[in-house]
Amino acid sequence: MTYLVMKFGGTSVADIENIRKAAAHVSREVKAGYKVCVVVSAMAGTTNQLVNWTNDASPLHDAREYDAVVASGEQVSAGLMAIVLSSMGIPARSFSGWQVPINTDDAHGSARILDIDPKNLLEAMNDGLVCVVTGFQGVAPSGRITTLGRGGSDTSAVAVAAAVKAERCDIYTDVNGVYTSDPRIAPKARRLSRVAFEEMLEMASLGAKVLQTRSVELAMAQKVRLAVRSTFDDADADQVGPIGSDHNVPGTLVCEEDEIVEKQIVSGVTLARGEAKITLRGVKDYPGVAAAVFGALADERIIVDMIVQNVSDDGRETDITFTVPNDEYDKAMKALNSTKDRFEYDVISGSTGHAKISVIGVGMRSHAGVASSMFKALADKGINIMLITTSEIKTSVLIEEEYGELAVRSLHNYYGLDKADK
Amino acid sequence: MTYLVMKFGGTSVADIENIRKAAAHVSREVKAGYKVCVVVSAMAGTTNQLVNWTNDASPLHDAREYDAVVASGEQVSAGLMAIVLSSMGIPARSFSGWQVPINTDDAHGSARILDIDPKNLLEAMNDGLVCVVTGFQGVAPSGRITTLGRGGSDTSAVAVAAAVKAERCDIYTDVNGVYTSDPRIAPKARRLSRVAFEEMLEMASLGAKVLQTRSVELAMAQKVRLAVRSTFDDADADQVGPIGSDHNVPGTLVCEEDEIVEKQIVSGVTLARGEAKITLRGVKDYPGVAAAVFGALADERIIVDMIVQNVSDDGRETDITFTVPNDEYDKAMKALNSTKDRFEYDVISGSTGHAKISVIGVGMRSHAGVASSMFKALADKGINIMLITTSEIKTSVLIEEEYGELAVRSLHNYYGLDKADK
Repeated sequence: MTYLVMKFGGTSVADIENIRKAAAHVSREVKAGYKVCVVVSAMAGTTNQLVNWTNDASPLHDAREYDAVVASGEQVSAGLMAIVLSSMGIPARSFSGWQVPINTDDAHGSARILDIDPKNLLEAMNDGLVCVVTGFQGVAPSGRITTLGRGGSDTSAVAVAAAVKAERCDIYTDVNGVYTSDPRIAPKARRLSRVAFEEMLEMASLGAKVLQTRSVELAMAQKVRLAVRSTFDDADADQVGPIGSDHNVPGTLVCEEDEIVEKQIVSGVTLARGEAKITLRGVKDYPGVAAAVFGALADERIIVDMIVQNVSDDGRETDITFTVPNDEYDKAMKALNSTKDRFEYDVISGSTGHAKISVIGVGMRSHAGVASSMFKALADKGINIMLITTSEIKTSVLIEEEYGELAVRSLHNYYGLDKADK
Repeated sequence: MTYLVMKFGGTSVADIENIRKAAAHVSREVKAGYKVCVVVSAMAGTTNQLVNWTNDASPLHDAREYDAVVASGEQVSAGLMAIVLSSMGIPARSFSGWQVPINTDDAHGSARILDIDPKNLLEAMNDGLVCVVTGFQGVAPSGRITTLGRGGSDTSAVAVAAAVKAERCDIYTDVNGVYTSDPRIAPKARRLSRVAFEEMLEMASLGAKVLQTRSVELAMAQKVRLAVRSTFDDADADQVGPIGSDHNVPGTLVCEEDEIVEKQIVSGVTLARGEAKITLRGVKDYPGVAAAVFGALADERIIVDMIVQNVSDDGRETDITFTVPNDEYDKAMKALNSTKDRFEYDVISGSTGHAKISVIGVGMRSHAGVASSMFKALADKGINIMLITTSEIKTSVLIEEEYGELAVRSLHNYYGLDKADK
C-alpha cells in the first residue's frame, strides 16, 4: 500500500506559479517513494466564469450541456499540472473523468460516483507516471460528461483513493489543518493533529468549511484516511518521513476513532450565527403532527436545524421549537400560518438573532456530564440557554447571538483546548 | 440528402451575443428543413490563452497534455452553442471529438483525421436534434484527445460533412465570400458566386485567408461542396430558398469545376508581398543538384516558393532562381554558403523587396494566351517581370514590390473582374 492521493483545490492551482508550489509537494512525496495520483479542481475563478456563461446563454439550460462546459475547467488545470510535473522531471499524465473512467449516475450537475475502475490509474502509476485526474467530474452511462456539484473535487479525491486503495488521501487547501475552533473567534484555537471521521462530519456541517461533508461521509464509509494540509506551507520543510509514518503528517489527519490514542472529551467548539427560533405552543399532540409542521416547511424548501419537542403534561398538547436561518424566518412564519388547517396550536411565537454553540467530541460517549458541565460553564458567564439538543458526540445550545463569541472562547478554555501561551 | 454542416469560427462564437447571431443562421436552416450539424471553433482568444498557459507551464511540454488543455476551448463553445440553440426552441446537443468519435492518428498537436463514425451524429439528427461538434480535435487510438493544429476546425467541418454525406458544408466567417482580389488593394474586387476547388486551393495558398488549404484539399478529395458565408449578415435576410437550391447561396460556393456553368478565364488576382529572390549562376548540372540546393534550405526549414531553372546552353551548367520570404533571405544565403561543398556554382546573387502576382482560373486550361496577355498588360504599365512560373490554372510573376498594387488593379481590370461602377 504505497499509493497516495493528493488533492489540490482551486486556489492551489489558481495560476502557473501556484501550480508549481503544488507540484513541489507532489515531488516530495514521489521522492519519498509514493506512487502518486493527483486530483485537481479548476483554476480559481474559472468555474464561476464558465457557470456565468451558461447562465448568460440561457438561464434554463440543459444540465448536460452545463456539465460539458463546466467540466472543461479541470481538464485545463489537470493538463497544466501534468506539464509542470514533467518539467520538474516527474513523468505525469492527465486523465479526464471519462478517461479514468469515473462512472457516475446521470444526475447531471450533481451526479453521484457509482464506481471507479482503477485499472488505468494503477497501470500508469506502476509505469512510473504520476496520474493527474480531473476532480469534480465523471461520465454517465450515456457517455456524456457529468459534474458532481460544488465541492465535488474532494469527493473525487476520496473515491479515487478508495479505488486505488491509497494509504492516505491528502487534501491540500489554503488552511493547514482542522482547528479546535475558528481562530478568528477563539484566538487560542489550536490545530488538531487527529480528528475522528464522526467529529469531522459534525464540524463540517457546523460551518468548519475545510472539507465538504459529502467527502467526509464517503471517506468514513470507505475507510479512506484523510489529511488536511496547506499548499502554501514550504514543500520541502513539510517532510513527513518514511512511508507509513503519517503520525507526523503536518496538518490534521482525519481517521477512525480507534486510531486516535489520546481521545479528548471535546475536540472542537463551533459557532453558527444568524439563527432564528420559532415556537408553537399548545400543539394538539397526535401521531403525524410533527410531520405536518415540518412538511409545511419542507414544501417551501426551508432547512430546519435544531428541533425540540417537549413531552406534554397531559399527553394531549405539546410545545415544538425549532430553528431556521434568520433570513428564512419570515418565509417560515408565512408557511406555518398558511397551513394552519393542517394542525392545531394555541400560540406561535419566535425571534431572530440567535447563535448555536456546539461542543463536539467522540470522547463524550464515554464521559458522562459533558452537557451539564457545558451548561455550567455558560451559566458562570451569565449566558442564558434557550434550547438544547444533543447527539452522541455533540451538544448544541441556542443563545443570544451577542454572547456567541464569548461562549465559544469560554468553552474552548473550559475544555482545555487553548494552546499554551508562549 | 438533407443534411447540412455549418461551421462557425472563433470570431463567430466570441461571446454569447455572437453565438446568438450564429444560432439564428442555424435556426433558419432548420426551419428550411435541413438536419443540421454545427461545428464550432473555440471562442476567439480562448485558444491563445490556453496555449500561453501551456507555454508558461513549460516551453517543452508534452504535446498530449497540450492537446488536453487546448481542446477544452471548443468543449466550452460547443456546450454554449447547444444551450443557446435549445433556448431558441431548437433541441441541440454537443459532442466532443471523442464522443462523435472523430478518430485521428496520434500526431498530437497536428493530428490527421483517420475516420469519423457518423452513427451517433445521424442518430441524433434523425431524432430531431441539432448536433454541435467541437472542431479542431479528435481522439487518438490511445483514447487521448488530439488537436488538428491551427485552422483545423474547417477540416473538422469538411470531414463531418463527408461522414454524414451532407448536401453542403457552410463555413461561416467574418467575410461574406471569396473575392476576385483583396478589396483593400483592388477596390473594384467583387465576390465570386462560385469558385472551383482547384482555384480555391491556389487562392488559399496564395494568401486569400478565407479557408485553410487543408480543408479545401479534403473537400475536393471527398467531393464536399463548401460555401463561404458571413455570420454577420442578417440571418433572416439571408434565406437561400428550398433545400437543394444552393445556386442562390449568399457568399461563395466552392464546388467542382463542372458545376460552374460560365467559367471565367481568370477568377482571381492575388498579391503576395515581401518576397526575396536568390539566383545561383553557373551551377554544375548533374542529377541531384537541385535536390542538394533545396535540401540545404529544407534543413533550415526555409520555405521556398517559386523555383525557376533554365535549360543550360551546353547541358553542363544551369541557372537556378527561387524565392523565399524577405525575412528568411539572410538565413537562406547563409545556408547556401555553408553547404557550398555539396554543389558547384559560379555566382550567387539575390535581392529582397519583391512581390508575387498571380492570376488564377480553371478557364486557363482551355484558353491559350492567358500568360502572354498577362505579360502584355503588365508591360503596358511599364512593370518589369523578373520571374515567371506557371501551373495548369495559374500564372505567377515576380515584380518589384512597389508595383504590386498597380499590377493587381491593372490585371483585375484587364481580365474583366471589376464590378460595374454604380
